Amino acid sequence: MFEQLKALIEDENRVITAGIDEKYYSDHLGHIKVKPAAVVIVASTDEVSKVLDFANLHHIPVVPRGAGTGLTGGTVPTEDSIVIDLTKLNRIQHLDKETMTLTVQAGVLLEEVQAFAESNGLFYPPDPGEKASTIGGNISTNAGGMRAVKYGVTRDYVRSIEVVLANGSIVELGSKNIKDSTGLDLKDLLIGSEGTLGIITEAKLRLIPKPQIARSVLVPFQTLEEGIDTVLDIKASGVDVAAIEFVQKEAISLSEQYLKIEFPTHKGNAYLIFTFDGDTASHVRDNYEKVRELCYQHNALDFLVLEDEESFEITWQIRGAIVKAVESVSVQEPIDIVVPINKSAEFVKYTKAISNRHQVAIQSFGHAGDGNVHLCIIKGTLKEEEWQEKLQLVLEDLYQKAAELGGLPSGEHGIGLTKLKYYLDYANEVQITLMRNLKKAFDVNQILNPNKAY
Amino acid sequence: MFEQLKALIEDENRVITAGIDEKYYSDHLGHIKVKPAAVVIVASTDEVSKVLDFANLHHIPVVPRGAGTGLTGGTVPTEDSIVIDLTKLNRIQHLDKETMTLTVQAGVLLEEVQAFAESNGLFYPPDPGEKASTIGGNISTNAGGMRAVKYGVTRDYVRSIEVVLANGSIVELGSKNIKDSTGLDLKDLLIGSEGTLGIITEAKLRLIPKPQIARSVLVPFQTLEEGIDTVLDIKASGVDVAAIEFVQKEAISLSEQYLKIEFPTHKGNAYLIFTFDGDTASHVRDNYEKVRELCYQHNALDFLVLEDEESFEITWQIRGAIVKAVESVSVQEPIDIVVPINKSAEFVKYTKAISNRHQVAIQSFGHAGDGNVHLCIIKGTLKEEEWQEKLQLVLEDLYQKAAELGGLPSGEHGIGLTKLKYYLDYANEVQITLMRNLKKAFDVNQILNPNKAY
Ligand SMILES: Cc1cc2nc3c(=O)[nH]c(=O)nc-3n(C[C@H](O)[C@H](O)[C@H](O)COP(=O)(O)OP(=O)(O)OC[C@H]3O[C@@H](n4cnc5c(N)ncnc54)[C@H](O)[C@@H]3O)c2cc1C
Ligand SMILES: Cc1cc2nc3c(=O)[nH]c(=O)nc-3n(C[C@H](O)[C@H](O)[C@H](O)COP(=O)(O)OP(=O)(O)OC[C@H]3O[C@@H](n4cnc5c(N)ncnc54)[C@H](O)[C@@H]3O)c2cc1C
Repeated sequence: MFEQLKALIEDENRVITAGIDEKYYSDHLGHIKVKPAAVVIVASTDEVSKVLDFANLHHIPVVPRGAGTGLTGGTVPTEDSIVIDLTKLNRIQHLDKETMTLTVQAGVLLEEVQAFAESNGLFYPPDPGEKASTIGGNISTNAGGMRAVKYGVTRDYVRSIEVVLANGSIVELGSKNIKDSTGLDLKDLLIGSEGTLGIITEAKLRLIPKPQIARSVLVPFQTLEEGIDTVLDIKASGVDVAAIEFVQKEAISLSEQYLKIEFPTHKGNAYLIFTFDGDTASHVRDNYEKVRELCYQHNALDFLVLEDEESFEITWQIRGAIVKAVESVSVQEPIDIVVPINKSAEFVKYTKAISNRHQVAIQSFGHAGDGNVHLCIIKGTLKEEEWQEKLQLVLEDLYQKAAELGGLPSGEHGIGLTKLKYYLDYANEVQITLMRNLKKAFDVNQILNPNKAY
Repeated sequence: MFEQLKALIEDENRVITAGIDEKYYSDHLGHIKVKPAAVVIVASTDEVSKVLDFANLHHIPVVPRGAGTGLTGGTVPTEDSIVIDLTKLNRIQHLDKETMTLTVQAGVLLEEVQAFAESNGLFYPPDPGEKASTIGGNISTNAGGMRAVKYGVTRDYVRSIEVVLANGSIVELGSKNIKDSTGLDLKDLLIGSEGTLGIITEAKLRLIPKPQIARSVLVPFQTLEEGIDTVLDIKASGVDVAAIEFVQKEAISLSEQYLKIEFPTHKGNAYLIFTFDGDTASHVRDNYEKVRELCYQHNALDFLVLEDEESFEITWQIRGAIVKAVESVSVQEPIDIVVPINKSAEFVKYTKAISNRHQVAIQSFGHAGDGNVHLCIIKGTLKEEEWQEKLQLVLEDLYQKAAELGGLPSGEHGIGLTKLKYYLDYANEVQITLMRNLKKAFDVNQILNPNKAY
């Protein structure tokens, strides 16, 4: 059966049914692994269309896969499925300077888009931690990242997408127009749909003029609560801040050991890291001076403007490596809960209580400016069985608390496989019915990433 | 039959089946009028739910209506339909200062939201021309307005909506969370859906800190093309501009006569009107000084910083009254085409050619910073039959040209009744099929605003 795929693809070596590379069994999550029936490495939109047409006819599940850097098992296949690998759709196609729109294929990497934009004096603001992820993956999970505080998330930088639907038809959703009140907003429905409604093959991204100056600041506090309270005041003040991250001492220590470099300060127990950007040094300075004042009002222990390249690089490297640092010492379960911004201190405090109650280590860090709290729940020396048991309890507590606070299971990583149960536990029934009806409206035979859909 | 509605509504005087006010026959468009079978003035979400449940059971069309200021016939009923008037859902319910979220019922007016926010030191950026429109109407058309250049459109300020579905069930879509990658984006699908997928009864709006200073600038040019070329350079420069409007001399003259006030300049034939805002006078001044330079590079005839209250007020009053000024002298057909920003000069030039070719007066003005061109096609002294004939030809030419340029029939007003034909003429078939499937997924019996759906 899967051999028939070879007739649809220009080079039959791109259809793999035997000796499938293990990387296709999972994504960065790693710990759930399933071998698919076939992998097709596509090289054009047309090939995606042919494979979907075939799969739809035979009711075969299809799992789209970008770089596989997701943290939720979103690309974990089923045994009878075809994985479509989109990484060869890797052409930067066209820069339209007048409308500041960049057309790229879905497999182009985030770091390539960022670099290309900047080499043209332009800027692609979305900045999720993993720069070797694909634009298609970023759009399909509505990835967020560091600069969302000021610039918003991936959704805000997608002018249009080319999508292949489950039946193989190809459609462009959105356009180069800045405004649009024409018909239903199908584009936004596809963004963040995690491969369940269609496969994105191309995107027109909105770029903006590159800010001329960016400056980061590192601020230690005695307690995380003081730091997070500061964030609320900063948001209310309207100061122009591009990024507000929070990290705690233990996470920093792990990252320091992993990278073998030293954080610029060891004062305090919790840190805020800010980025300010703009077109003039005075604009940037005015803004961080206002923030300095607010930080000191909340008992900041220091206010380190990272003026030299080295301390800037080290700070962000250490912040960026936390997940991998944790993983280098233990199995972990990554969490991406978002809560209303005024609830983040309460939520983080609660994670500490849970950590104590269940005697499981939990590292928290994340996007303080958005209430988006990342947690690594850490296996450490627990035996597998005990770990599984405790993990369940911890997860149930966390998702329940999030729901109580008006939060959601995912701020930016998506639901994937690992959160589906918890999502369904707290989702509204009417919403789930609507989503199921929509899924059917797009994908009658339910072939697209079927094990992840609601 | 419609008498049964009285049992569902607390005060039966709010169910009108005889002596229906003529205002319910149309919206601000005026020239298409249909008398509905009944009007229900609802006073709670629960009443909306009951009416929809009843209508759904009996397959009766329902037309939601806010303030009826729409320009597309979006609220024009069918003869067998129930109009649901939402203007009594007019409570501002709750301001959550920490998350800067304002909860309002759908019938609250835009001007009330703006004033309430500002009286609390906050700011609701969306600013469509008609301030006596409802928030529910704004959301349902994804209204744009003057400040979209910097702040975006209504969509960007909706954190969540309470929606009553065709079957009467009530659901909240979205939340107070800043980020969301949890499940399908139903909220954005409902925004801009013009009452075809559900009735919005409540919204949580995102407010931002109020900018401390705003300054407008009026710039005359010899030709509109020079003005619009300037806009491209301004966008590319990354200068912080809140609004960029364009108007032409004839439209200004009509508005001057209508309001009996005088525009601050009579130089040139076309004008750009800018607003700059921010927290410091120097930020605002720095930005308009950069724009001054760019304007003079494109042969601006003057650069009038509107520092006194009076000239500021007069300029915006005259800009805001254009539609009503045209209407005071003639029947007109309002157009809301959007084109990619680098095509707006070409599009406006084309409207002049069409005006000459068909010998029909056309006034153009609009949101230059977004490529959103408003046109008033003016009947003037034409006889009704000739007018209808010419209007058809003009509209066909305009929508075809827009499509050629990659534009869309509506940037901010919606499709409504008047653009449906032209929309369908140029829309992609796959898209329309998807929209029809979605409509069925939400509204099995096709009762919601059925004569407007694709
Ligand atoms: C160290 C680290 C840091 C991270 N930091 C962040 C962060 O700050 N912010 C953030 O948001 N995320 C972050 N992530 C998560 C991850 O990088 C993002 O989710 C990224 O967007 C995934 O892109 P990908 O190409 O790897 O997608 P994949 O993992 O391949 O796929 C992700 C999902 O999208 C679907 N998909 C992929 N491509 C397509 C397509 N073309 N069409 C349709 N569906 C498709 C898949 O089926 C799957 O459901 C981080 C991950 C790591 C490992
Ligand atoms: C002088 C003038 C200037 C204008 N300037 C602008 C401008 O700059 N920008 C702009 O975008 N628009 C502008 N408009 C158009 C109009 O004001 C907007 O479309 C406005 O958003 C309509 O709000 P409304 O309450 O009057 O809605 P209505 O006209 O009552 O309804 C509009 C549509 O939304 C649906 N609807 C209304 N309320 C609900 C609800 N609660 N739930 C579901 N569906 C609903 C209706 O069925 C209809 O399809 C202007 C209009 C005028 C007259």
